[in-house]
Amino acid sequence: MCEPPLLSPIGVVRSPLHNRADAPRQGSEGAPDAWILLDPSYADALQGVAAGDELVLLTWLHEADRSVLQVHPRDDVSRPLAGVFATRSSDRPNPIGLHRVTVYGIDGLELAVGPLEAIDGTPVVDIKPVL
Amino acid sequence: MCEPPLLSPIGVVRSPLHNRADAPRQGSEGAPDAWILLDPSYADALQGVAAGDELVLLTWLHEADRSVLQVHPRDDVSRPLAGVFATRSSDRPNPIGLHRVTVYGIDGLELAVGPLEAIDGTPVVDIKPVL
Repeated sequence: MCEPPLLSPIGVVRSPLHNRADAPRQGSEGAPDAWILLDPSYADALQGVAAGDELVLLTWLHEADRSVLQVHPRDDVSRPLAGVFATRSSDRPNPIGLHRVTVYGIDGLELAVGPLEAIDGTPVVDIKPVL
Repeated sequence: MCEPPLLSPIGVVRSPLHNRADAPRQGSEGAPDAWILLDPSYADALQGVAAGDELVLLTWLHEADRSVLQVHPRDDVSRPLAGVFATRSSDRPNPIGLHRVTVYGIDGLELAVGPLEAIDGTPVVDIKPVL
């Protein structure tokens, strides 16, 4: 059971956002709605997820720089450097994105969700209900 | 920048819980306090994290069965099978644990936190502030 921690993407984000520079820092900061296209091999894992649900999406922020350990919060150089574990920087050793979204609808393997600040093509690695 | 999604553990959980069977399902269900031992190579990333902070720990639930796509919620066989994405089952394709904890104190690379339902030896993969 003790496998190496290699993530298997379960789906991908489809979004009008195509560049990190255009993306808001958080979903609550004006992010657009988006779609999650689930890999067919995980269809059974979606049973019970329904429109109206509040979910936590976990993504792999594939354009992040994993070597970064400290940042100026919100890229504001007037603020002192902080460790990435004290920030929500996407540049961090394991760039897992956490996104709270509402499900607007489900059509087969496609979920309409929002708001979502992840860019088009971002791998999705997990979907959990909000507790 | 597009690296394979291979997680690098940044630390490990030290806990009085040693078996999944003994662990509560959620931190809020009577979980004990625990320690996070950070890998020294990530010390700089902890700067700014302080006692009293509310954090989201992300762990790799290394004893999970990644082949499971559906479960009876809370192992209650009277309940119908649900897709793991509609549950907080630790058995799921990418068994990343999300744990909201309070920091009780920090001593160098050791963080006292709680409550935490992850068992002793669970790899920690990320630490984020609660927004």
